[in-house]
Amino acid sequence: MTKSIDFYFDIISPYAYLAYKQLNSLENLKQIKFNYKPILLGGLHKLAGITAPAFNEFKMKNMKNDCNLISYKKNIKFQWNDKFPINSLKIMRGYLSVNEEKKDIYLETFFNAYWQDNIDLENIEVIKNLLKKIDVDTNKFFNDLEDIKIKEKLKEITNSAFEKEVFGAPTFIVNDKLFWGQDRLDYALEEYSTF
Amino acid sequence: MTKSIDFYFDIISPYAYLAYKQLNSLENLKQIKFNYKPILLGGLHKLAGITAPAFNEFKMKNMKNDCNLISYKKNIKFQWNDKFPINSLKIMRGYLSVNEEKKDIYLETFFNAYWQDNIDLENIEVIKNLLKKIDVDTNKFFNDLEDIKIKEKLKEITNSAFEKEVFGAPTFIVNDKLFWGQDRLDYALEEYSTF
Repeated sequence: MTKSIDFYFDIISPYAYLAYKQLNSLENLKQIKFNYKPILLGGLHKLAGITAPAFNEFKMKNMKNDCNLISYKKNIKFQWNDKFPINSLKIMRGYLSVNEEKKDIYLETFFNAYWQDNIDLENIEVIKNLLKKIDVDTNKFFNDLEDIKIKEKLKEITNSAFEKEVFGAPTFIVNDKLFWGQDRLDYALEEYSTF
Repeated sequence: MTKSIDFYFDIISPYAYLAYKQLNSLENLKQIKFNYKPILLGGLHKLAGITAPAFNEFKMKNMKNDCNLISYKKNIKFQWNDKFPINSLKIMRGYLSVNEEKKDIYLETFFNAYWQDNIDLENIEVIKNLLKKIDVDTNKFFNDLEDIKIKEKLKEITNSAFEKEVFGAPTFIVNDKLFWGQDRLDYALEEYSTF
């Protein structure tokens, strides 16, 4: 077994974005194999009986301030999205739809659109324009969103995450140990370096 | 105005304990004035419409693992309490009851009893024994728990915290900025050092 870190994410999560940016910028992480695990956070919360912080005004306000602060401290480009939260189902199914070699650029494009550029990812025309920029066939993409195999795949990864007791995003699983939150990236990396 | 940090805590919170231990052990914090603000976390959660992680099995399990991990990483003596959660009303009213010069030792004694020694703080005899060890008059203590002034004082501090948008523990307020969680102690200290 190759050593690796499972990274559970949903583009809707600002903390998943902040973690993702660290995975992709920290020099010492370049040698680490991350397994990207797209989940539907709303579905996962439902399975776990959790109310997302977005649905409590005090947690919501704190989350916004906190993400602004973390991004400032860690020098990550970040802007709160005025349309937060949205249903991320299309975007996450879309990640499963695009070809293997397009997944990285898809993720970067949509994470940046939502958490850097304050773009409305519920607007179909906006999605189409982003897809065109990265040369993804928009017809195939929107067909795939209704494809039973794609639908089931996202459910399957989400359910499988829940079976491993993942209940939020981002979550890292290293050496069968679960680390929840971008705050735990350091501990996850320490676990990786020692097992 | 003297520079200071408000520290909102309830003994029931393992993260408040972990923060408290750092406040009391880190050499660079010795010069900082902390204002200890006892709150009833259950009451605060109710005001804010928040379900505590203790009441979700997945968050509960993660919290236990997470606190064990943090305490290990930060070299803080810690043991999960088998009776978690309990109603901390008596213990928090008690903090307001004891004389000013006893508050520090009271807090240390009850925090340690609950989060180091796995002691049942719902047991009146246990509480009495702990009070005797620190020379607190048990009769006065238990009378005070039903004293309207003590009851109102705890409510008042909790309500006043909520008015400042405190919704969890530990919370630090520095320079009118709110930092939630022991994970944010570092950022709170950075704010303190620059304002």
